[in-house]
Amino acid sequence: MYQHVIDGIERVDAALRPVAQQKIDGKTKPLGALGRLEALAVQMSLIQNKLNPDVERKSMLVFAADHGIASEGVSAFPAEVTGQMVGNFLAGGAAINVLCRHHDIDIRVVDIGVNADFKAHPDLIRKKIRKGTRNFAVESAMTAGEVLAAVEAGMAVFLREFEHCPIGIVGLGEMGIANTTSATAVICAITGVSPGEATGRGTGIDDQALKHKAALIEKALDLHQPDPVNGLEILQKVGGYEIAGIAGAVLAAASKRTAVVLDGLISTAGGLAAYQICPAIGDYLISGHRSVEVAQRSALEHLNIEPVVDLGMRLGEGTGAALAIGTVDAACRIMREMASFEEAGVSNSS
Amino acid sequence: MYQHVIDGIERVDAALRPVAQQKIDGKTKPLGALGRLEALAVQMSLIQNKLNPDVERKSMLVFAADHGIASEGVSAFPAEVTGQMVGNFLAGGAAINVLCRHHDIDIRVVDIGVNADFKAHPDLIRKKIRKGTRNFAVESAMTAGEVLAAVEAGMAVFLREFEHCPIGIVGLGEMGIANTTSATAVICAITGVSPGEATGRGTGIDDQALKHKAALIEKALDLHQPDPVNGLEILQKVGGYEIAGIAGAVLAAASKRTAVVLDGLISTAGGLAAYQICPAIGDYLISGHRSVEVAQRSALEHLNIEPVVDLGMRLGEGTGAALAIGTVDAACRIMREMASFEEAGVSNSS
Repeated sequence: MYQHVIDGIERVDAALRPVAQQKIDGKTKPLGALGRLEALAVQMSLIQNKLNPDVERKSMLVFAADHGIASEGVSAFPAEVTGQMVGNFLAGGAAINVLCRHHDIDIRVVDIGVNADFKAHPDLIRKKIRKGTRNFAVESAMTAGEVLAAVEAGMAVFLREFEHCPIGIVGLGEMGIANTTSATAVICAITGVSPGEATGRGTGIDDQALKHKAALIEKALDLHQPDPVNGLEILQKVGGYEIAGIAGAVLAAASKRTAVVLDGLISTAGGLAAYQICPAIGDYLISGHRSVEVAQRSALEHLNIEPVVDLGMRLGEGTGAALAIGTVDAACRIMREMASFEEAGVSNSS
Repeated sequence: MYQHVIDGIERVDAALRPVAQQKIDGKTKPLGALGRLEALAVQMSLIQNKLNPDVERKSMLVFAADHGIASEGVSAFPAEVTGQMVGNFLAGGAAINVLCRHHDIDIRVVDIGVNADFKAHPDLIRKKIRKGTRNFAVESAMTAGEVLAAVEAGMAVFLREFEHCPIGIVGLGEMGIANTTSATAVICAITGVSPGEATGRGTGIDDQALKHKAALIEKALDLHQPDPVNGLEILQKVGGYEIAGIAGAVLAAASKRTAVVLDGLISTAGGLAAYQICPAIGDYLISGHRSVEVAQRSALEHLNIEPVVDLGMRLGEGTGAALAIGTVDAACRIMREMASFEEAGVSNSS
């Protein structure tokens, strides 16, 4: 499946760009006056290869997994919170549930490596690779077989949802205590930014724990020496199952010409790994929001994308992506519904 | 009516703030992880004096008027576009129509001084004071009677809509060729920022026209010498009917404890004038978006509020406010619907 999906990814047709730009330029507003909404409208036109883009159906996939590195005391929360939060997602009580209801986004929760067992639930997709990664401070987080299985699980989840009912836009969220440590390691390995510069407080650790977390990432990268261009190897050595699953979902979505909205640090790390595997996915990526976590900035620079929402958020789950999906929806409606100067009989600027 | 409305404006009850803060802090997320959404949820709780705030009903009032100053060549668009765009609003083809449909916001268009006549339309409210202000480069934009009539018209429009069906949040937009010149003059008069620093390109004028526009504002302020603390006098001398109408709507909304979302430069100038008239309205103000126009920044600093949306927009009409209303809606839902650690059985941080 892995190679088949990657082989199916095509760049968007750049020849449509001037046509889409001309359409948005002809709308009843000063040139460029809708700012980012216009850029999003054009990008969605290119992604969907049509001048009336839409976001039907809106999907949110939340990948959850545990992390061996949590045993190093890198999080303000105990590891059992990963499983508890999956329960909260399935009960509909988490922030991501509220925001998905707000924007009419279908949510699915993927257990791709949580250290807990869950009863069947219509919104739960079971793809558990293992009950948490190994501690990457001392050994590779995954085996070579596991990382491929996790990426393919992410692909399969997206493709199953897509076959069930086509998806116009997908947000990618996550849950996993200690996963900012893993995501920061992935981003440092790929972009070359130093852990000392890029490590953040995650769910809220103090100065001492922050220092410890950065030193741990630095030591792990020294130990594993991952190849910066090899996305799969990096995921195997310092990644997480949810990050690998997100990378797989990004690749599968791009293969179906579906717009992908990344969330914060962890989701962006997954998108970054997918980009190292297949740079053509870049055309399909939208950065949902600017996270407080600094490593995200390095990843976004590498991907050359700018966040849509900037509200000082740092929750993950897909919350920033959910808000951004609402904005992309608005941008598509502008492209479809807004009148041109000609249609409205309004005089244009001289 | 003017004094009666102002006398009815009360500050929010600060005693509710720690209670609302405690409620949002108890939700299943790290402390403060939803950033601005949390601050908006708390502000909406204080405005509505309840811990389950909502935005029902969402209203958008778009005030349209013409400007005598347009004859000085300060806009990239001809003056007849004001009336043509009112037609576009009523036909549902403008950006603000699209974004109001997107967020289920009831829109009303107020002709408070357009130099054109309109047929009756269910979404049109007729409050024309005069077919455009006078040219404030040479005389006061309005008479003392007209400015009071315009502010009271804004009050009456809000109150009529509110009596028809209560409003939980109101966005205030505008249309008026040359109104960035008037709005910049209002902001410069109140905040003391210089026109050379604060004047922007509006709908898209070139360098030479920009210089001319700034010099014109500077000369007008020299001519009129408006008192910085007298909001009504400033509106009379260099304001516009739509800016005065917005000021009136802000005052009326605050008197009914309704949250007010300002839009870009012109709407913010109206909010600023209202603040000079009655500083207690500050509790009810939300800045919808960061405009590209620099004078808005000075106004927001004076008001001590931060924009919700920052998408490089500079269209006006209420478009930034409409997007922000969606975000405030989301913040209210977070406050109402999200589970607490206790409710969800999730372990909190140590």
